[in-house]
Amino acid sequence: MSQLLATWAPVVTPFDSELVPDKERFLSHCRWLLDSGVGLAVFGTNSEANSMSVNEKIQLLNWMGEAGLPSDSMMPGTGSCAIPDAVALTQHAMDIGVSNVLMLPPFYYKGVSEDGLYGYYSEVIERVGRENLRVFLYHIPPVSQVPISISLIERLMKSYPENIAGIKDSSGDWKNTQAVIDAFSGTGFKVYAGTERFLLSTLRAGGAGCVSATANINPKAISRLAELWQSDDADERQAALNQVRDVLEKFPVIPALKEIISSCRNDEDWRNLRPPLVKLNEEQRRNLMEELMMCRFSM
Amino acid sequence: MSQLLATWAPVVTPFDSELVPDKERFLSHCRWLLDSGVGLAVFGTNSEANSMSVNEKIQLLNWMGEAGLPSDSMMPGTGSCAIPDAVALTQHAMDIGVSNVLMLPPFYYKGVSEDGLYGYYSEVIERVGRENLRVFLYHIPPVSQVPISISLIERLMKSYPENIAGIKDSSGDWKNTQAVIDAFSGTGFKVYAGTERFLLSTLRAGGAGCVSATANINPKAISRLAELWQSDDADERQAALNQVRDVLEKFPVIPALKEIISSCRNDEDWRNLRPPLVKLNEEQRRNLMEELMMCRFSM
Repeated sequence: MSQLLATWAPVVTPFDSELVPDKERFLSHCRWLLDSGVGLAVFGTNSEANSMSVNEKIQLLNWMGEAGLPSDSMMPGTGSCAIPDAVALTQHAMDIGVSNVLMLPPFYYKGVSEDGLYGYYSEVIERVGRENLRVFLYHIPPVSQVPISISLIERLMKSYPENIAGIKDSSGDWKNTQAVIDAFSGTGFKVYAGTERFLLSTLRAGGAGCVSATANINPKAISRLAELWQSDDADERQAALNQVRDVLEKFPVIPALKEIISSCRNDEDWRNLRPPLVKLNEEQRRNLMEELMMCRFSM
Repeated sequence: MSQLLATWAPVVTPFDSELVPDKERFLSHCRWLLDSGVGLAVFGTNSEANSMSVNEKIQLLNWMGEAGLPSDSMMPGTGSCAIPDAVALTQHAMDIGVSNVLMLPPFYYKGVSEDGLYGYYSEVIERVGRENLRVFLYHIPPVSQVPISISLIERLMKSYPENIAGIKDSSGDWKNTQAVIDAFSGTGFKVYAGTERFLLSTLRAGGAGCVSATANINPKAISRLAELWQSDDADERQAALNQVRDVLEKFPVIPALKEIISSCRNDEDWRNLRPPLVKLNEEQRRNLMEELMMCRFSM
């Protein structure tokens, strides 16, 4: 298996004025991210993945495949509340050559047991039934409300040592990221931070990199730090990334990402979001772009 | 429009040993509920609706249609995180003659705005585009984590007076149920409590009835109270219902419902659940059935 990229973007999904996924804008954004050294974690939280049907996601995968985008630079999100949906989407991703998928736990029921989550992942892995499947578990308790514990990872790795490949930790809690890195040190289990704020700390601790919303709008600087993390100016580079992140986090993140792309590309339709998300208002737009201009930032 | 039933069960979904929905068990349970005076709120939380794909739910609707079950005794859950899924399922339900649907808000993103939720419901209603659609909003913040406020209901009723028909309030908070009943008193907006514990209070306050998990296993007693709520023994009947409910709430509710049906029907497969839910263990089974035997309870 080729070396995995260190920086991934949960690729934002462009919708046309009818809220239908837009092929040209999507592929163009994907290509720009790849050129910027960033992998395509399509169907993440920031992709509005759960606002799309399985069939729509299959169509986007087909577009990527037909466009000849490299499948080892893709890590589609394929987790779902329903096992048949997770299996269908994972199988389809593998049909176009993808091995690495990012898998949410089922997120409707709250307070579910570790046995239940183990059962979910094992059903999906067994039903997909392919040796080269590499599952990255998706820990994002602020949104999913269903956390993935170290003991769950241990059980899954024991049962599926070839298939359980890593985790994206979007807890926003560095202590948790460090604990997961330490717990699986030397096993090959790859830990990605869910924000570039922890990119340098993650790489220094032995983690794999980051999967970050901001990589949609600041990809070059983030992927460059992932390359140069052992250089003398690494902390300075991290500080520059944090400045941009600080601005983004003052706003609803997905609408802000789309606003930035829309502004920079002078393309009104890039602002479109599917409800329940809503566009930034005029004042938010102005403040966002003004604050960004103060950062060392260029798209 | 005919008078709506007062008591509804979120119909539990039987799965075979491969975890595939089981047609015969499903239709047999539906018929028994109808015979017991209870409507079929299929695809509710307790139906494991979000553990099924849209296509599986469409298949269950087709089974009900082909079996000739009365469409005015159906209130399928059709809400989804993805607008295309909610639209497809709602349209299919209406194709088999259903008007009344119970609609979850999109539940992946947390802290979404009222504008965003308004946008979601209005997109679904407009895309379905049928005058006889009757939407019952589904307020279940302990699970969805996305509440439905009185002001959201007001906005939706103003825009879609023909389509916004009522609410199921599964907040578990009687004060909220009463506030919603009072807020829409005299408008025809129907308020169902999400537990039969509040059935008598709801009917006395001017509400419509209840949609309750327990109606899967205690349907006759619940629907009987809905008929006789003005009789002298109504409080006594309510107390008897509460006894059963008290027992059920000591256990994980969906596994407990399936355990009770499995035990009473002497049918092992009725215990099957899709992960992340798990079966009761031996001790829980024994305690559940022993405690139920102490109630005035019969299936």
